Amino acid sequence: MGAHFADRLLSAIEDKGAPACVGFDPQLEQLPPELLGRAGPADAASDDAAVRALEVFGRGVIEVIAPYVPAIKINIAFFEPYQEAGIGAYRRLVAHARATGLIVIGDIKRADIGHSATRYADGHLGREDSADAVTVNAYFGIDGVRPFIAASGSGEHGVFVLVQTSNPSAATVQDVVMNGGGSFVEHVAAMVQSWAVDEAPVGESGYSCIGAVVSPRDTDSTRRIRALMPSCLFLVPGFGAQGRTADEVATCFRSDGTGALVTASRSIIYTQSRTPSRDWKAGVDEACRELVAQIRRVVHAG
Amino acid sequence: MGAHFADRLLSAIEDKGAPACVGFDPQLEQLPPELLGRAGPADAASDDAAVRALEVFGRGVIEVIAPYVPAIKINIAFFEPYQEAGIGAYRRLVAHARATGLIVIGDIKRADIGHSATRYADGHLGREDSADAVTVNAYFGIDGVRPFIAASGSGEHGVFVLVQTSNPSAATVQDVVMNGGGSFVEHVAAMVQSWAVDEAPVGESGYSCIGAVVSPRDTDSTRRIRALMPSCLFLVPGFGAQGRTADEVATCFRSDGTGALVTASRSIIYTQSRTPSRDWKAGVDEACRELVAQIRRVVHAG
Repeated sequence: MGAHFADRLLSAIEDKGAPACVGFDPQLEQLPPELLGRAGPADAASDDAAVRALEVFGRGVIEVIAPYVPAIKINIAFFEPYQEAGIGAYRRLVAHARATGLIVIGDIKRADIGHSATRYADGHLGREDSADAVTVNAYFGIDGVRPFIAASGSGEHGVFVLVQTSNPSAATVQDVVMNGGGSFVEHVAAMVQSWAVDEAPVGESGYSCIGAVVSPRDTDSTRRIRALMPSCLFLVPGFGAQGRTADEVATCFRSDGTGALVTASRSIIYTQSRTPSRDWKAGVDEACRELVAQIRRVVHAG
Repeated sequence: MGAHFADRLLSAIEDKGAPACVGFDPQLEQLPPELLGRAGPADAASDDAAVRALEVFGRGVIEVIAPYVPAIKINIAFFEPYQEAGIGAYRRLVAHARATGLIVIGDIKRADIGHSATRYADGHLGREDSADAVTVNAYFGIDGVRPFIAASGSGEHGVFVLVQTSNPSAATVQDVVMNGGGSFVEHVAAMVQSWAVDEAPVGESGYSCIGAVVSPRDTDSTRRIRALMPSCLFLVPGFGAQGRTADEVATCFRSDGTGALVTASRSIIYTQSRTPSRDWKAGVDEACRELVAQIRRVVHAG
């Protein structure tokens, strides 16, 4: 058995000196043109050709970022349009990223009733070739999460439960006010904290293998969510393209400077669409180093 | 462009004389032994062998049930443990079921923020080889659903949004009481109704291509949810193995006897594990005919 997920992640964050994660959400139209063949995206019209381009791009991104950041989040949604070929590429990239020493979060956002959730867990966690951690949806309650805990190998793998998301319509579901005050998202946060300590192994660091996806909406609500979930590591999307400010992100950390892993996706991997003449790997390299510097400033300011 | 999804489904229900759907949730351990080879599940230890067995079983189930029911719901969770081989089998079974004339619901329960949800929709709806409808999760609000509406081909395809689920812990999320009374699930129900009429095409029948997954918890709450969602077809899981009563299921229908498609899964496809000596197709045949008869009684009693 390996070390607990939270301990592994915190140790990797310390090694790299920043709680930074690159999100890999690859879209064919945004790939460096040289990966697509002379005709551009049209050359990659078949699923196999498209997947080959995504995979070459992914391996390049992984190699560039591995020295700078502790973790990568790979979003399976961007592979599913290519059906079985896409799933194969997702798996190979997960394995390649792990082989380079990155901690890999499989952004799969699955959940179902128990016996179906078990099958999702079988597919995506605790296998030789699966990610170190996955994201799951909270709508079913603990039944949709427990099979992933069971597949976590006594906490060696992590499970990030969606708590607060970054999209515009999230508030229509997540910010509704409950009887007795407090928002629905605070109810979910308190529930996930109880799962984190009652249902799942806690590491030496005091953090559970159950974490939470929390995209800060404003500093006040984020501070309340942080206080409700002392045992959960936060996976914080939306630094960069989704426009979260440094202050908002800083409130995702506990006062000891631990407790969050901050993710930027499009702003790191699509630098070439902003500066087409430049070598794409040099662009990713620079953007990744800048991300690390920004996140260090956030942690130290927090 | 084809007919609207709701009109197609209602017409298929009328043709078969019952709003019945078979859920296909295949587990290797429950397959008829003759499909697994002489050594049983151990013979199907490789992903490829396992997937071959699931696929033979699936084609058999489809052929047996197609004369009796209008629809099949295929749960992708049961294919994902087998990675790319599993996704290939899921796709081929979806296509085979459609070719036999069944309406196919891809039970994928996906959702993400907009640009990621778009990729899930690209993978699972509106393709030549994809399902007639899919299930999606409501946690992101309309942003997680709109890309599926966009992929619906002006309503030719359907999108069932998870509203009330059947699992034991569902209540911890879905039954929490809101400020001003009413449960969270009623809030979601009202929201999905507004999407169904404001965001999505409504068919000649008056039903939208946006439907809802509603597993009745008791007759009172189900009656309230039905009243909140007059424009939504309900996909009702849990008839049979999940133990919903006829009374509870009857409240999912509108007073005109339309408005719901009732699904049974394990009680139909796993008859052989209850009567091992019998030909498995004969068992599925009998269970499917009994399902249709039971659901007819429910509709007429409602």
